[in-house]
Amino acid sequence: MSYQAPVKDMLFNIQHLAGLETLTHQVPAFADFGLDTAGAVLEECAKLTQDVIAPLNFEGDKNPSSWKDGVVTTTPGFKQAFRAYAEGGWQGLVHPTEFGGQGAPKTIAAACAEMLQAANMSFALCPLLTDGAVEALLTAGSDVQKATFIPKLLDGSWTGTMNLTEPQAGSDLALVRTRAEPQPDGSYKIFGTKIFITYGEHDMAENIVHLVLARVAGAPEGVKGISLFLVPKFLVNADGSLGARNDAHCVSIEHKMGIKASPTAVLQFGDGTAAMCANGAGPGAVGQLIGQENRGLEYMFIMMNAARYGVGLQGVAIADRAYQKAAAYAKDRVQSRPVDGSVAGSAAIIHHPDVRRMLMTMRSLTEGCRAMASTAAAAFDAAHHHPDAEARKQNQAFYDFMVPLVKGYSTEMSLEVTSLGVQVHGGMGFIEETGAAQYYRDAKILTIYEGTTAIQANDLVGRKTARDGGQLARGIAGQIEVTEAALAKRDSAAARAVLKALRASREDFLAVVDFIAASAKASPNAAYAGSVPYLMLAGNLVAGWQLARALMVAEDALATDKAFMEAKITTARFYAEHILPRTASLRAAIVDGADSVTELSLDAF
Amino acid sequence: MSYQAPVKDMLFNIQHLAGLETLTHQVPAFADFGLDTAGAVLEECAKLTQDVIAPLNFEGDKNPSSWKDGVVTTTPGFKQAFRAYAEGGWQGLVHPTEFGGQGAPKTIAAACAEMLQAANMSFALCPLLTDGAVEALLTAGSDVQKATFIPKLLDGSWTGTMNLTEPQAGSDLALVRTRAEPQPDGSYKIFGTKIFITYGEHDMAENIVHLVLARVAGAPEGVKGISLFLVPKFLVNADGSLGARNDAHCVSIEHKMGIKASPTAVLQFGDGTAAMCANGAGPGAVGQLIGQENRGLEYMFIMMNAARYGVGLQGVAIADRAYQKAAAYAKDRVQSRPVDGSVAGSAAIIHHPDVRRMLMTMRSLTEGCRAMASTAAAAFDAAHHHPDAEARKQNQAFYDFMVPLVKGYSTEMSLEVTSLGVQVHGGMGFIEETGAAQYYRDAKILTIYEGTTAIQANDLVGRKTARDGGQLARGIAGQIEVTEAALAKRDSAAARAVLKALRASREDFLAVVDFIAASAKASPNAAYAGSVPYLMLAGNLVAGWQLARALMVAEDALATDKAFMEAKITTARFYAEHILPRTASLRAAIVDGADSVTELSLDAF
Repeated sequence: MSYQAPVKDMLFNIQHLAGLETLTHQVPAFADFGLDTAGAVLEECAKLTQDVIAPLNFEGDKNPSSWKDGVVTTTPGFKQAFRAYAEGGWQGLVHPTEFGGQGAPKTIAAACAEMLQAANMSFALCPLLTDGAVEALLTAGSDVQKATFIPKLLDGSWTGTMNLTEPQAGSDLALVRTRAEPQPDGSYKIFGTKIFITYGEHDMAENIVHLVLARVAGAPEGVKGISLFLVPKFLVNADGSLGARNDAHCVSIEHKMGIKASPTAVLQFGDGTAAMCANGAGPGAVGQLIGQENRGLEYMFIMMNAARYGVGLQGVAIADRAYQKAAAYAKDRVQSRPVDGSVAGSAAIIHHPDVRRMLMTMRSLTEGCRAMASTAAAAFDAAHHHPDAEARKQNQAFYDFMVPLVKGYSTEMSLEVTSLGVQVHGGMGFIEETGAAQYYRDAKILTIYEGTTAIQANDLVGRKTARDGGQLARGIAGQIEVTEAALAKRDSAAARAVLKALRASREDFLAVVDFIAASAKASPNAAYAGSVPYLMLAGNLVAGWQLARALMVAEDALATDKAFMEAKITTARFYAEHILPRTASLRAAIVDGADSVTELSLDAF
Repeated sequence: MSYQAPVKDMLFNIQHLAGLETLTHQVPAFADFGLDTAGAVLEECAKLTQDVIAPLNFEGDKNPSSWKDGVVTTTPGFKQAFRAYAEGGWQGLVHPTEFGGQGAPKTIAAACAEMLQAANMSFALCPLLTDGAVEALLTAGSDVQKATFIPKLLDGSWTGTMNLTEPQAGSDLALVRTRAEPQPDGSYKIFGTKIFITYGEHDMAENIVHLVLARVAGAPEGVKGISLFLVPKFLVNADGSLGARNDAHCVSIEHKMGIKASPTAVLQFGDGTAAMCANGAGPGAVGQLIGQENRGLEYMFIMMNAARYGVGLQGVAIADRAYQKAAAYAKDRVQSRPVDGSVAGSAAIIHHPDVRRMLMTMRSLTEGCRAMASTAAAAFDAAHHHPDAEARKQNQAFYDFMVPLVKGYSTEMSLEVTSLGVQVHGGMGFIEETGAAQYYRDAKILTIYEGTTAIQANDLVGRKTARDGGQLARGIAGQIEVTEAALAKRDSAAARAVLKALRASREDFLAVVDFIAASAKASPNAAYAGSVPYLMLAGNLVAGWQLARALMVAEDALATDKAFMEAKITTARFYAEHILPRTASLRAAIVDGADSVTELSLDAF
């Protein structure tokens, strides 16, 4: 088995940390999504991802998507796997029933998304992007647009893309130059080049729905003059059937370090050559406006926030995959005697303390980030569906704070975990046939796309912390104190160890929140110099907090499943003793070290 | 310019931290290697590495070495570059003049080695391995062996390899199975398979001198029954001319994540087929014993210690290369407005605090590790050449303590730095054509080969710390206190900041040394659970210490080269404020967290 979905751990989180039963009682629409359903859904998803999709992961690295004359051929087997995925109804899992979705809570769907990403990140990017396109249409699309496009996206006939980046416009979307020319019939002609378009061209579906940021002539400068357009690969007739090929073409795909099976396209919209204008209407890609002009960035952010959470799950997913592989190797590979003399001769390397330290680091980081993501998903569901407006508002605020942590911290941690994964394998880890190296290469994109870690950290500092003077952040610290109080009532060694570390890290967090809130306006360079360390501190703390909650559940449920609960307790304690203390050094760097970040003169670099 | 050798920084270290002038005054053999000579040698080496060798680095990644029918063809250009390297006399730089070397101190040669590695790590591995073979022959070879082989290795006619690893024997050399059968003429026939043999086959030299670990029949079990053999690719006649092809053949090379241009061979010694036995003497590779039977591991460790230091330099080298590329990109790439409003519109990303933080992290780690390596090299020179026996002994002890830090810490830090290097490039960093990804892929081998970080850490815990009860380690802490006392006499903000951080880290170090010394025998799992964190703490501290010394030199020398000295001060301060504080979390994990490392039951993994 190349991948074993961690169904038990996911259900533990869903039940005990995310509180699914509370949600299903409060939200009538979720009444059918109780724990039993969750269990059944996860088991079904585990089968598909383990048996059908995971085996294609290594294959995709060896035989990546290829481009020829504008046509992209995906890895052998991807097309069939995508069919199985679509026919299982998985693309619609979290989306509204009125368009053919299943209307499941994100609390459940997030676990399925993690499985899909763990099984095959390159493959899973296609559904991830389609999810984003559906979100954007649900938010800002017209009724006709929704009815025309969403059902086809959910049944897997078509897929979606996000077209933001241009060569000169990456993190800085104010620099977008692609232009949209209004046509007499209400449509637009799109002209421009977009790069880094994930699944911008492929052979797994009959049509591709590009969502494209562009400027209408005369629009305001900067981000306030950007609109969002829907530009299908094949035009769609009024009856939903496919029409002419649009003037939107893939001129190349990138040669990347990782996620090689995922085609990363350069798309040319309206290149003006007659041969490309099969729509017979002259050059320019035919697009339709989504929502209102000049509000494109706002809509795109909705899509991007969903995608950012999804990329955070990719971090958890690839970390778990790397952990599973490393643990299996460590149990199998025999090398050297244990230092404690517990085995007479050479033993499996899992008997060596440093191998154990690496595996526990991988495991605890993965479980911590998974727990954080699960809690965040519950907040999302409550924010969108809770009957009480105040509860919706509070959950939304909590979720908003979590998104940069789930995205930023989980992906940064995946770099550490996949690196350790190679390390556990020793020399074999560096040989591509082993497979551990692929996770290391694949993971590196995660801290970059959908907003680099620095972009997440800017969001955390600016919108999520400084804007309200640190109030929301302090509120979360207050919730952590409640957990500390509960831990203090226990007398197990594990609870005491976790309490000590959690309290110290929460105090580090508060000191940094005070620093950020105080300096964001007065000394922005100082606040933003500490932005990524602050994100890492906050993510570390919140993940550790969730594991602390898990520890208490596990202590109380020891009788129900001793081996699992004991492992959870040990993992939570390891995290508290080995990972949480990192907040001390981050605090010192942020609070004492801001000046030295920007002191060196530019000439000296 | 794809690589700019940091000659000025190297000479600063050589003069002020390594104290070259003291060495040249004390050691008559080094009298000609004063600062002027050092400067000339470094400038010459910079030219060769920048102009000839660095341009082949990316090419080697695109067009790696290839294998066909036992023949390995290296990347186009490598052969010519190796010729230029050999003809310049660089292979002999650090080796004795009596065999055609230049007899330069390691203090100077280490800087040249860093340049070569930075220019092209895949290429530079060949000279690195040859250096190791020369060391082994100097230590244990007979006079005839030395006279026959060393001059040819130094003039680049032949190259050397280290043959340790077998499929079942990686870190655990007790498991070596390759066997050596004594022949009537005093030679041996070698039979077995060796893997991961760097430059085990190639086309850059006319012969390859394999140093091979094998067991003579009847030798004791385990590492005490391993002998070292010299097995040339072509047999060497008494007059030094080449004879028959030996029965030692490359049956394949590995498909690796990085250092792709460096051929990693599987070597078959004595495969027994007649076709392979061109020496006409039946199957078996003809080898000669080096030194005495059963002392092979001892000799190999001499070679390995030289190589470990060299691999540490590879860490510094690739970190510097990654830094240079990232800094250049950050000055060039325009994206977004600075948060402090210092530029009206979009600015080069080096104006953004987090980009600056990343670059400063890369720079300070690189300079810190370079300074540590330079000081260690000076200790090596004094240990081998100082006229006073007690001084030799003390320097040897210091150097022995430094080797695992130079190897382990510098290579682990290179993972962080090369990852940040990709990150600074954003999406472009993930595209192979950019080149930043190559450093990330290449670097990952460094924490693995020549002994993984855990192997270095075992050495640090066992032989270097626990064996003398922590005495040597405390002695080094005492030297650091001397630096603290000197810092305390200064009233600059930078000196105060560095003093505060250095003192705290030194105290963390001492607490951990006490813990390791106390638990190594009583509770070996606890001591070794903290082995890698201890190595990281010690390496961090020593690199920070050397930068603290550098800061004082720079403050006193501001008038001589203001821009350089100011940059040194800022870099040292950044390291103290952002890197040194990591020791606090490492200390906590080691001292408080040992139990949770090994607590999880094996079944739970």
